[in-house]
Amino acid sequence: MNIAVLGTGMVGRVIAARLAELGHHVTIGTRDPETTRARTEPDGMGNPPYSEWESGHADIGLGTFADAAASAEIVFNATSGAVSLQVLGLAGEANLDGKILVDIANPLDYSSMPPTLLVVNTDSLGEQIQRTFPGVRVVKALNTLNANLMVHPDLLPEATSVFVCGDDADAKATVTGLLASFGHTDVIDLGDITNARGPEMLLPIWVRIWGALGTPMFNFKIVR
Amino acid sequence: MNIAVLGTGMVGRVIAARLAELGHHVTIGTRDPETTRARTEPDGMGNPPYSEWESGHADIGLGTFADAAASAEIVFNATSGAVSLQVLGLAGEANLDGKILVDIANPLDYSSMPPTLLVVNTDSLGEQIQRTFPGVRVVKALNTLNANLMVHPDLLPEATSVFVCGDDADAKATVTGLLASFGHTDVIDLGDITNARGPEMLLPIWVRIWGALGTPMFNFKIVR
Repeated sequence: MNIAVLGTGMVGRVIAARLAELGHHVTIGTRDPETTRARTEPDGMGNPPYSEWESGHADIGLGTFADAAASAEIVFNATSGAVSLQVLGLAGEANLDGKILVDIANPLDYSSMPPTLLVVNTDSLGEQIQRTFPGVRVVKALNTLNANLMVHPDLLPEATSVFVCGDDADAKATVTGLLASFGHTDVIDLGDITNARGPEMLLPIWVRIWGALGTPMFNFKIVR
Repeated sequence: MNIAVLGTGMVGRVIAARLAELGHHVTIGTRDPETTRARTEPDGMGNPPYSEWESGHADIGLGTFADAAASAEIVFNATSGAVSLQVLGLAGEANLDGKILVDIANPLDYSSMPPTLLVVNTDSLGEQIQRTFPGVRVVKALNTLNANLMVHPDLLPEATSVFVCGDDADAKATVTGLLASFGHTDVIDLGDITNARGPEMLLPIWVRIWGALGTPMFNFKIVR
């Protein structure tokens, strides 16, 4: 499939590389491709410059948010949750309409540590995106684990659980199929997009478990 | 040990019965023992009247919140999170001072379903209790799973994870020992009491997983 991944950070790169490995045609979206390619220093999270990463991933395209979205059947939101609505606005409602948007972002406020949530309890980023772009088929997924585990859950010693929610059953089925292609064997459907509150509010304990274990390489398994 | 369990609902009864089974001397705390014993109808959650349950648990005492707390070395807060601070006030600061308070409550607002949280994101019920009763050694624990699984995790097909947090290391060690006596083999220490925000904000996904699975008999296993 033609898939756009919005966001050039570590999460976007990991998702894009895995999708390309699985045979999809992938374009990463950014504000300004020239600026992205011109950077020569690691980004604020210590990731190597995009151009360095790109040289090892020649099969993955880079375009503006709008160009990436326009060419895609499925769009991954791999941006920081604090700017997701702005980025999706730049991608353009017309370029997103009717498409599946896999929202893997978390609305985290890093101004204090551990981070708090910018949207919480009676609302969620997933719902905000769905309300702002009513023609988009939003599926919240994969925001509850480390990027490397999102696409390679077999890095853990046993199978774990991930969640999907959204208003469009066909879109959830397509995303569940993509998650299965990544290696996920226990995908729990939480219901409509209002249920994005659940997986988003999982982040506060996720960051604390990371602190307690000293590694982000863990995931929740729902034992029943 | 002498242990008080504040709250006569299902959670309090299950905790009290298990502690008594393990050889502890247990007193359940309530507002007014006469009123509690006089009820002949199931409570709002469908639990049988207390007097009926009590007749099968003759070894478990019933007293006022204050009397139960006064006689105990360890106090379990098994009340509804919405009234926990009020109940602890009735138990009395002098009766609680210096003691371990195991806070297993969740500050849930049931006025809409699924419930939302009454305290969230930058505060938690565990912290509110610690601030209100600075002489009490609060340990947040066990709020992340069904009451029957709190005390019999072996009802699930494999070992799962639970969490503790609090400011007093000795209190956490004592509570971790109690959890081990219940059968828990993976107790993750999240740090000081501010980390109660993590396990409390787990509830929104907990209630949704219950809905998705059709059973509350599940728990989180942290696979790493």
